Amino acid sequence: MANADDTPLGPHTLGVVKRNIVRADPGAVDKLSRFGSATIHEAMGRVGLMKPYMRPIYVGARLCGTAVTVLLQPGDNWMMHVAAEQLQPGDVAVAACTADSTDGFFGDLLATSFQARGARGLIIDGGVRDVKDLTAMGFAVFSRAVSAKGTVKATLGSVNVPVICAGALVNPGDVVIADDDGVVVVPAALAQQVADKAEAREANEADKRAKLASGVLGLDMYKMREGLEKAGLRYID
Amino acid sequence: MANADDTPLGPHTLGVVKRNIVRADPGAVDKLSRFGSATIHEAMGRVGLMKPYMRPIYVGARLCGTAVTVLLQPGDNWMMHVAAEQLQPGDVAVAACTADSTDGFFGDLLATSFQARGARGLIIDGGVRDVKDLTAMGFAVFSRAVSAKGTVKATLGSVNVPVICAGALVNPGDVVIADDDGVVVVPAALAQQVADKAEAREANEADKRAKLASGVLGLDMYKMREGLEKAGLRYID
Amino acid sequence: MANADDTPLGPHTLGVVKRNIVRADPGAVDKLSRFGSATIHEAMGRVGLMKPYMRPIYVGARLCGTAVTVLLQPGDNWMMHVAAEQLQPGDVAVAACTADSTDGFFGDLLATSFQARGARGLIIDGGVRDVKDLTAMGFAVFSRAVSAKGTVKATLGSVNVPVICAGALVNPGDVVIADDDGVVVVPAALAQQVADKAEAREANEADKRAKLASGVLGLDMYKMREGLEKAGLRYID
Amino acid sequence: MANADDTPLGPHTLGVVKRNIVRADPGAVDKLSRFGSATIHEAMGRVGLMKPYMRPIYVGARLCGTAVTVLLQPGDNWMMHVAAEQLQPGDVAVAACTADSTDGFFGDLLATSFQARGARGLIIDGGVRDVKDLTAMGFAVFSRAVSAKGTVKATLGSVNVPVICAGALVNPGDVVIADDDGVVVVPAALAQQVADKAEAREANEADKRAKLASGVLGLDMYKMREGLEKAGLRYID
Amino acid sequence: MANADDTPLGPHTLGVVKRNIVRADPGAVDKLSRFGSATIHEAMGRVGLMKPYMRPIYVGARLCGTAVTVLLQPGDNWMMHVAAEQLQPGDVAVAACTADSTDGFFGDLLATSFQARGARGLIIDGGVRDVKDLTAMGFAVFSRAVSAKGTVKATLGSVNVPVICAGALVNPGDVVIADDDGVVVVPAALAQQVADKAEAREANEADKRAKLASGVLGLDMYKMREGLEKAGLRYID
Amino acid sequence: MANADDTPLGPHTLGVVKRNIVRADPGAVDKLSRFGSATIHEAMGRVGLMKPYMRPIYVGARLCGTAVTVLLQPGDNWMMHVAAEQLQPGDVAVAACTADSTDGFFGDLLATSFQARGARGLIIDGGVRDVKDLTAMGFAVFSRAVSAKGTVKATLGSVNVPVICAGALVNPGDVVIADDDGVVVVPAALAQQVADKAEAREANEADKRAKLASGVLGLDMYKMREGLEKAGLRYID
Repeated sequence: MANADDTPLGPHTLGVVKRNIVRADPGAVDKLSRFGSATIHEAMGRVGLMKPYMRPIYVGARLCGTAVTVLLQPGDNWMMHVAAEQLQPGDVAVAACTADSTDGFFGDLLATSFQARGARGLIIDGGVRDVKDLTAMGFAVFSRAVSAKGTVKATLGSVNVPVICAGALVNPGDVVIADDDGVVVVPAALAQQVADKAEAREANEADKRAKLASGVLGLDMYKMREGLEKAGLRYID
Repeated sequence: MANADDTPLGPHTLGVVKRNIVRADPGAVDKLSRFGSATIHEAMGRVGLMKPYMRPIYVGARLCGTAVTVLLQPGDNWMMHVAAEQLQPGDVAVAACTADSTDGFFGDLLATSFQARGARGLIIDGGVRDVKDLTAMGFAVFSRAVSAKGTVKATLGSVNVPVICAGALVNPGDVVIADDDGVVVVPAALAQQVADKAEAREANEADKRAKLASGVLGLDMYKMREGLEKAGLRYID
Repeated sequence: MANADDTPLGPHTLGVVKRNIVRADPGAVDKLSRFGSATIHEAMGRVGLMKPYMRPIYVGARLCGTAVTVLLQPGDNWMMHVAAEQLQPGDVAVAACTADSTDGFFGDLLATSFQARGARGLIIDGGVRDVKDLTAMGFAVFSRAVSAKGTVKATLGSVNVPVICAGALVNPGDVVIADDDGVVVVPAALAQQVADKAEAREANEADKRAKLASGVLGLDMYKMREGLEKAGLRYID
Repeated sequence: MANADDTPLGPHTLGVVKRNIVRADPGAVDKLSRFGSATIHEAMGRVGLMKPYMRPIYVGARLCGTAVTVLLQPGDNWMMHVAAEQLQPGDVAVAACTADSTDGFFGDLLATSFQARGARGLIIDGGVRDVKDLTAMGFAVFSRAVSAKGTVKATLGSVNVPVICAGALVNPGDVVIADDDGVVVVPAALAQQVADKAEAREANEADKRAKLASGVLGLDMYKMREGLEKAGLRYID
Repeated sequence: MANADDTPLGPHTLGVVKRNIVRADPGAVDKLSRFGSATIHEAMGRVGLMKPYMRPIYVGARLCGTAVTVLLQPGDNWMMHVAAEQLQPGDVAVAACTADSTDGFFGDLLATSFQARGARGLIIDGGVRDVKDLTAMGFAVFSRAVSAKGTVKATLGSVNVPVICAGALVNPGDVVIADDDGVVVVPAALAQQVADKAEAREANEADKRAKLASGVLGLDMYKMREGLEKAGLRYID
Repeated sequence: MANADDTPLGPHTLGVVKRNIVRADPGAVDKLSRFGSATIHEAMGRVGLMKPYMRPIYVGARLCGTAVTVLLQPGDNWMMHVAAEQLQPGDVAVAACTADSTDGFFGDLLATSFQARGARGLIIDGGVRDVKDLTAMGFAVFSRAVSAKGTVKATLGSVNVPVICAGALVNPGDVVIADDDGVVVVPAALAQQVADKAEAREANEADKRAKLASGVLGLDMYKMREGLEKAGLRYID
């Protein structure tokens, strides 16, 4: 489908690179980077989470940055090179594929290029390779798979169109936060608001943690006993 | 199905918390804790093993304790809070779900509470989150998945009814042993007997290991050559 | 199907052990051992890679050696003991199964025996157990699964027949290279040629890496801009 | 684990055939046979359902009968022949496996034998073959897979021990109901009670169906509006 | 996240029912209904297709209509009843879930209600039950699974917010076309344009089919020989 | 890897079309066509079977013919058009892919062309579309998936090189037999021998079937009782 320059690009439109994208406010991104994916997912109202098959390629990988989206064709990483040029410091490449694929679309050479551009990492609903090198470089990658399988450079995808990556909609410029627990996407326009809610939530949790550590039960702290009784829970001996 | 107080609870009966359960003998549990899951699985006669998709959330996690069972509804962790009150020192929570789910039913707050009760860990046929915190706490967890996805508290399951968790039947009070190789369940009544068999087996293995390390072949040590020949094995050049 | 001694054995022929196999040239194997699986896969012309579900059982496992192939029946590891006798220093056991299985066909006792024979590791399209011990022994294993489930010794498979392991054809004597990125098979007759190509490729990559690190884009280094334009890539603002 | 004759057999005990089992009351089985698996699952209080990967091998297959349980080893159907002798008219063979397997454990010859014994069908957490013949014979089969792969006869399993089949506990003599929607297990002792509840439920549904067909909304018929409002549902334009 | 009435609803916002949605033009929907999902997917520029695990529950099921979207919580079908009220003649319910689930969220009672409202079918990234009844009613359903497992009515989802269903973004009012080949989504604003392209494409195919049937090769009809030669294809004997 | 014209082509060599292949003897193919895949798999000594995820796209599909192999790249069906030219009457196209893919590589236009060439069907470790048309044409297809997703024509694979398709090695000219039970491959050189064994096996089965139908048990017919007793089977009441 052709898109006039003033029409919003639809998800997965092919053959397009959008150069000017609106990135989330840097202050909000910084603030979001202080929280884990689970906290931000809760602060979002439990939306925006990618599927749990997305895993870090090494223990302790973590990232928070603004999305430059990439739409790949299966077995083809041509668009990764196109995306490199669009990356700015603080960005994270978020790569979706038009079909499920575990091929190794990304390795140490592309990581070197992305890192030189200031990118903070890669989220990819596909495979990557050169895990040992990426780990040594400290380049954070969250992927569906690891695979040595190489890819061709023959078919157009897109850069900076909306993509559905591992079940989540990602618009270019959105904030992406990833850690051991998963990958969550915060729309650029909500970044500050979600960061504030995450902060409030975390403050709240410290107090709860102390109570639970002292032996107070969640049943009492959250006042659940009445609700459970109304729902019909039966205690027997 | 209604259960009179003197009827045994069936697997996955909903809406019930059983307070008094018969835990395996502490001495037998201690003895079992000295062996790995593979050794105990063999000592059990190769029964009682959960499916291999159950994996530790960090390298080196290991636990052995008595089961407090939890039956969860998908996307709902209400019963985890109910279970906390039933936990005693030396227990392990074993959580099944009425449907396959990878949601994050458990995180650092519940772990704090479980640890304060003296629990040794969690086996869950579902997902958990706050992996970094759980690792730092040394709280052993074996799960089907890791996921930042939160859950609600709206629907009754049960605590301390028999559950089928990752393909294995677990009765409250049974011994659960988990390590890098998997999760195995020993019925409370068989705990001492299985511990003794595991001990005998392990003593036996040290000798075998020394022989094999010296170059003796299993073919000779286990006297397999005749059996293979009878079965028709053909050597060619 | 019966095989006369001069007929080539077909893939997965049952009930046969071939004693004399032609192993790849040791010098070529040594040279191949200097490269990663991704580099060798590329040098092979992108063939010979096993499916990406084959993973190392511990971080950093790595091996390169000549294949002694094993064909297992599901739930039965009898042939592992038969294979032990055929192993020579520098070999790697490559085990396929006649049906998908995750059982624990291999543990520390067999590893002790294999290591005593000089084997460098195991590639198995099935499960293994005793992960902690295997890690401590530094015995490299790449598998489909980890499982404490034991196996019987009752049904014939084969040793040193061609096998299809995780989607790749492996002939006895072929070189197998495995690391964090996957497992790749190099036919014995091509070992030297592939090692040379891998060397050339790697030399070439150092230069590319330096350029990309300095900020040169792949788009320019690989001269992709014209091709992308011809393919119709559209840049918008 | 050895079982004295007066000890209850544990799930998946190996090497045992129990000859005398207590089958559910024939009248209750007959009554249950009038209802679908979904209705019975509801009447059971939503327990006893096998995992949804269990599917009929032909459209319209349906069965209801008393379980003769079979515990198979992967790739081995020896126990199927042992089970045949234990089958009585009205029985259904329910086969579990000690490990996930898709092999073809059952085909037209065994079906001929089972049918000659009066069996009504087979539930198997594994594979079957000869689908065309089984369809022509009208022998109902619900399985995890279809596969031409043959099996050996070498390793003991059991007949008429409790088994966990596709996630559900099945005791010999229990009632098994299977149709297009799935497979559900009713403990023998509850058969009459569940049949009565299913009848009540179905009577109740006819009235609901008529109301809904006339245009009445479930929101009104089930009086959900107040609950939804309390839960905070927000209508916008 | 709160949404003011003039803010666009984000994907998967919880707790909201949007009453007024802009449905695709009925004429365009009618025209689209003449084409198969594969043709429309091509006319869309190869975007908008759901994952291939979405299958019809009976052979020959087919539908084309305007989407009323439903966001479900796992194991909970409360929102299905809320959705019924929003359905108009010609609509198709498109149900996503906040987590992967195979539960039976939908059966013959809801189908009776939906059909009474004029709905043409259901697309659900989850499970359904009462397959036999739904088939008899001719109510078209495309789902991820079939399962007898019942669901509760306890937790809010949403109706008519954007949803990601089986990997595709669906906005309320979009056109959904489903048949034996899969499920494709056409944004409401593009419906006429895509219908026209589909028509052109189909006209074009009749001619190609005739040529191929007469023995003309695609190599010649599509003039591929030169491209293949340039790409380096080598013919050997 | 370059292949001189007199070197055997390795599995999955890219960029090559072999024109002259040695097809199995037509008489042997005809004879094999009289038997089902399960019988032939047994006659082969239980080798040569594809994985059970390969399923017919319509009930009752069946084929037997000589293989023209196709090696596809993921998301790319260029080689299907190249393969069409190599098809002769009685052939079956057998398509493997260099990576797991469910894309729709094949539809009614290609089927029209293949049928015009005399091909009997398609075996594809990937997806197909236009199921309704293919069914109407009676063109037998066995595939891993059905998907409306289209493919590009941009990257070379091969035709008539050895391929590994769904876990089985297929050489061009081999006989492929597929039906409801699965897909089995018979090497060209063994076709007559396997056909003869299949015939003997089937003759043998008629007699067994009659005995079993009359109530004779497999335990007695196959004389299993002694073996079971030796293995330690215990009967209890």
